[in-house]
Amino acid sequence: MKLEATGWFESVATTAADAVRGANLIVICAPVPVIPEIAADVRDLLEPGAVVTDVGSVKAAMCRRIQHDYAEAQAHFVGAHPMAGSEKTGHEHSSDDLFAGRAVFVTPLPESSQPATDRVVRFWSALGGEVVTCHPDKHDEIVANVSHLPQVLASALCSFLSTRDVAWRNYAGNGLRDTTRIAGSDPALWRGILEENRHEVMRALAGMQDELQAIQSAMANGDYLEVLNRLERGNAYRKSMRPGKGEA
Amino acid sequence: MKLEATGWFESVATTAADAVRGANLIVICAPVPVIPEIAADVRDLLEPGAVVTDVGSVKAAMCRRIQHDYAEAQAHFVGAHPMAGSEKTGHEHSSDDLFAGRAVFVTPLPESSQPATDRVVRFWSALGGEVVTCHPDKHDEIVANVSHLPQVLASALCSFLSTRDVAWRNYAGNGLRDTTRIAGSDPALWRGILEENRHEVMRALAGMQDELQAIQSAMANGDYLEVLNRLERGNAYRKSMRPGKGEA
Repeated sequence: MKLEATGWFESVATTAADAVRGANLIVICAPVPVIPEIAADVRDLLEPGAVVTDVGSVKAAMCRRIQHDYAEAQAHFVGAHPMAGSEKTGHEHSSDDLFAGRAVFVTPLPESSQPATDRVVRFWSALGGEVVTCHPDKHDEIVANVSHLPQVLASALCSFLSTRDVAWRNYAGNGLRDTTRIAGSDPALWRGILEENRHEVMRALAGMQDELQAIQSAMANGDYLEVLNRLERGNAYRKSMRPGKGEA
Repeated sequence: MKLEATGWFESVATTAADAVRGANLIVICAPVPVIPEIAADVRDLLEPGAVVTDVGSVKAAMCRRIQHDYAEAQAHFVGAHPMAGSEKTGHEHSSDDLFAGRAVFVTPLPESSQPATDRVVRFWSALGGEVVTCHPDKHDEIVANVSHLPQVLASALCSFLSTRDVAWRNYAGNGLRDTTRIAGSDPALWRGILEENRHEVMRALAGMQDELQAIQSAMANGDYLEVLNRLERGNAYRKSMRPGKGEA
């Protein structure tokens, strides 16, 4: 289905140059490695005072590069990353309350324009997001742990299970389904995210491997009190998370 | 709320001995380590020809022990394990289509009574389950991979995250929520399951650790084609799973 026919859009442009003409707020929604290229391509076409933001999952290198590219520009860039969405892509999976109650990171650099940052914060707040403003480096550390690590685990679990008897997948209960749902996400998109955030992801992954090794060792030693301790610690953490949509 | 007051039960017994009187099919729903004790306690009170089954998550040692205890009995035991339920417990979370379309393992030993096995199969089929009959040893290997390993991963991820900045839990998107939902399960119950199935769980966990180490190494070597291969393998496996309730 063509975008024009959906009724969702006031206008549809086929090039980034056409899309930014006359706009005072531009949101670049593209895979992480492509965002700086698009930002650079449109820079000299932007309206004076226009603010450019994005939804990329990794921020540090990207924000620095675009900040550098925009140093002499009349427009401003301030990065953002809403913690919303699913393993599905495409406008046919749109939702008008996608951002309601969701954390949205806004990641200005110290040299970023404060008025531009304020506008980006207001934009995401108006969509119902709960804005968290922090440095791009801190953002990348946080999401490596709470987003990129879970993705690696879900994908790795499915990759591992694909090496065992494939008939077993028919016996999946809700536990396996929930735990692996995001393994259905776009592999190419995630390859880009993991590469862009490799240092923080590797650090989080190393910490997770230590945790698994500790459980493995406790089981090997018959120390089920230690196993129980870790199950309880995990249980308390999960219960302290705010309920999501559809969770009691 | 008292069980009697729910309207769900024709009668409620306060001891196992009272519960089995006059029954021709008994389903023991209790933590894995307790099931053989209950089965032994009621053995000499059972009606001749009565069939006892259960819903425990680990089968091999339990089925052998009860089979041994029931060798001279006039009643029969055949183990079962429905792959249904959630991290919630208690009759207030009942659902009348809990077993619809779910795999249910029925795990006779070679020496088990065939008519008793047939009755247990018919019972679970009548509740809408898709019965898979296999040896208790094979069952334990399968669930170590598709059920116990995901539980360990979800709990370990939460246990690991609890050692980082706890404020980060407020930034959880759907990915982290889904991946960790079962970490909210009862730790004591899972301690029992992991201990009972320790050999198979440790084997599955070792395989999973190898998978994570392969991803870690590929990232360290800058081999993102290898990372992509594993993401794609996981993606294909996840997409080959049958959709669960509420999944498109």
